[in-house]
Amino acid sequence: MALSTGIDLATLIADTEGEILRLVQSSDPATAGVYEMCRYHLGLDGSGSSGKRMRPVLGLLAYASIAGDHHAALPGAAAVELGHNFSLVHDDIEDHDVERRHRPTLWALHGVPQAINTGDMLFSLSRIALHRLTDLGFSDRKVLRLMRLYDETCVALCEGQYMDMRAADADAPMSVEAYFDMIGRKTAALIAGSIEAGALLATDDDEVIRRYRAFGWDLGIAFQLNDDLLGIWGEEQSTGKEPTDIARHKKTLPVLYAFEHAGPRDRERLAALWSLAELDPEAVSELRAILGRAGADAYTREQAHSHRDRALAELDAAGVVRPDARASLEDVIRRVISA
Amino acid sequence: MALSTGIDLATLIADTEGEILRLVQSSDPATAGVYEMCRYHLGLDGSGSSGKRMRPVLGLLAYASIAGDHHAALPGAAAVELGHNFSLVHDDIEDHDVERRHRPTLWALHGVPQAINTGDMLFSLSRIALHRLTDLGFSDRKVLRLMRLYDETCVALCEGQYMDMRAADADAPMSVEAYFDMIGRKTAALIAGSIEAGALLATDDDEVIRRYRAFGWDLGIAFQLNDDLLGIWGEEQSTGKEPTDIARHKKTLPVLYAFEHAGPRDRERLAALWSLAELDPEAVSELRAILGRAGADAYTREQAHSHRDRALAELDAAGVVRPDARASLEDVIRRVISA
Repeated sequence: MALSTGIDLATLIADTEGEILRLVQSSDPATAGVYEMCRYHLGLDGSGSSGKRMRPVLGLLAYASIAGDHHAALPGAAAVELGHNFSLVHDDIEDHDVERRHRPTLWALHGVPQAINTGDMLFSLSRIALHRLTDLGFSDRKVLRLMRLYDETCVALCEGQYMDMRAADADAPMSVEAYFDMIGRKTAALIAGSIEAGALLATDDDEVIRRYRAFGWDLGIAFQLNDDLLGIWGEEQSTGKEPTDIARHKKTLPVLYAFEHAGPRDRERLAALWSLAELDPEAVSELRAILGRAGADAYTREQAHSHRDRALAELDAAGVVRPDARASLEDVIRRVISA
Repeated sequence: MALSTGIDLATLIADTEGEILRLVQSSDPATAGVYEMCRYHLGLDGSGSSGKRMRPVLGLLAYASIAGDHHAALPGAAAVELGHNFSLVHDDIEDHDVERRHRPTLWALHGVPQAINTGDMLFSLSRIALHRLTDLGFSDRKVLRLMRLYDETCVALCEGQYMDMRAADADAPMSVEAYFDMIGRKTAALIAGSIEAGALLATDDDEVIRRYRAFGWDLGIAFQLNDDLLGIWGEEQSTGKEPTDIARHKKTLPVLYAFEHAGPRDRERLAALWSLAELDPEAVSELRAILGRAGADAYTREQAHSHRDRALAELDAAGVVRPDARASLEDVIRRVISA
C-alpha cells in the first residue's frame, strides 16, 4: 500500500490498531469476555477483515499534512475508530443485520443484550483513548477542546441515526433536502470531526481548522453519496458486496430523488412497487430502470463529485498541506469515492 | 422534604432537573423526537414519576458538605444522572423489562432500535453536561480529571453489566465473592464516582477525595444489598413494587449465599427449584423458606449494615463535613438503606 509520493497508509492503519489494542485488553478473567467481543467486532482478533479504517486514516493524514509525523495524533485516531465501531455494533442490531464484512455481527453471535453492552463499552473506551493526549504533552485546553468536538459529534451521530430510523418507518419518503440534513449528521459529522481533530491537534490557527472541517464535511457527504450509488448500481466484484439497497427498501438519495423527479407515471409505479413488503429481483430491476429514467444516478454522481471537488478546494484554501500528505489524501479519496 | 437541620433535598433535585432539561431540548423539528424520548425516560415530560435522583443528590451533598452552596457542582450531577439513565434505557432492553416506575419502558413504547439510540443520546449528552464546568470557572485540569473519573466509571459500569448478564446465562451460580466484584462495578462505581466527583470539585485535598470515594463505594454496596433484600422480602406498600426477584430468577446475594451455605438437602432442593423455567408462588415461598433457613437474609442485612457503617466512618475520617450536609447525607442514607 506504500505510495511513492505519499505517506504509507498501511503504517497509519497498523499504528491506529496498535493504539486501540492497548485499550481492548483485560488481564482480569472476570471481564475478559467483553474485551474479547470488542476485539472480535473491531477485527483485531485475527478472525477476519477489519475494515478500511478510513476515519482514523483521514484524521492522521490531516494531522500529518500540517505537522509532519503522525504519532502524536494516534489517541484521536483510536477514539474516532472506536466511536465509529460503537455505532456500527448498535446499528447492526437496529437494522437487524446478521453479517458485516463476511462475518456474523456481534448480536448475531452473542445476542442483543451482550451486543448492546459491548457497543456501550466501545463508546466508553473511545473516550478513555483521548486521555492519552495529556500524556503526550498536549495542553489541557487543547484536550478539552478536542473532547468537546468529540462529544458534539456523538450527539450529531445519534440525531442522524434517529432521523434515519424515523424515515425508514415513515410511509412518505423523506425530501431530498431532509436527506442531506440526515447524512450530514449520520455520516459527515464523524468524518469532519476526525479531520478537524487532526487539524486541531496540529495547529492553533482557527482558520486552518475551519477549512479542514469543511474539507471533511464535504468529503463525508461525497462518501455517503458514493455509497448510495454502489448500494444500487455497484458491481459485486469491485465492492465485495451485492447492491442490495433497493431490495432492503433503503431510501437513499437516488430513490428519494426519483420520488421527487420521476415522470408522473413512473412516480406512481415507484410508489406502488416500494409499498410491496418483498421486492423480488424483477421488481428491483424495474425500480432501477425507473431511477435511471429519472436521472437519479446521474444526479447522485454529480452531487458526489461536486462535494468531493469542494472538499479538495477547501483543503487547498487552507494553504498548509505538505505535499506527501496531499498525495496520500488524494489516494484515500480516490479509494472511497469510486463510483 | 425540607429538613430542619439539613439541606433541602427537593431543591437539589429541582436544580439537577433544571440543569438536565437544558440539555434535552431541541428547537429543530427534524430531531425533536429523540429529545422528547429522552425527556420521557427521564420523567421530565410531566407524564409520571422521575425516580429518586439518588446519585446526583449524593454528589451535590458531597460537594456542599465541603464547599457549601451546591450550584457549581450541578453539571457533574446532571452528567451522573444522564449516565445512570442511559444505562437504565439499555438495561431495560437487555432485561426485557416492559415497565419502569409504573410506566412503559422506552423500548416497549418506541421499539428496540429507537430505544438503543436514545440511550446512546443520553450517554452523549451526559458528557456534554460536563463541559459547562469550564464556563463555571473550574480549571481545565480539574475538568479533565473529572472527565477521566467519569469515563473510567462508565467502563466499570459496562464491565459490571457484562458480568451480570453472563452470570444470568450461566448454569452454575456465581460465587458470593464474584457477586461482590460484579456489584462493585455495576452499582458502587457510579455512586462512588458521583460522590468522588462532588469532592473533587470542592477540594484539592487528595486524601479527602479518597475518603469520599471510599464512603461512596461502601454506600453503593450497601444500597445494592438493601435492594437485594427488598427484591425478596420487601413489602409492596413500602417499596411500591412487589418482591419479584425470585420469580424472575435473579441471582442476588441471598440466593448465592444460600447456594453456598444451605444444608445439603436444602441446597439440592434449591438447585432443583431454581432450574425450573417458571417459578409459581408456591415455589417462590419454598425458596424463600430455604433462604431463611440458610440465614441468607440475616447475612445480607448484616453485610448491608456493615458497609453502611463503614461508609459513615470514612465520611467522618475525612473530617471536613459541614453539619447541615451531614444531616442530609444521613437522611438520604436512611431512605436508601431501609431494610
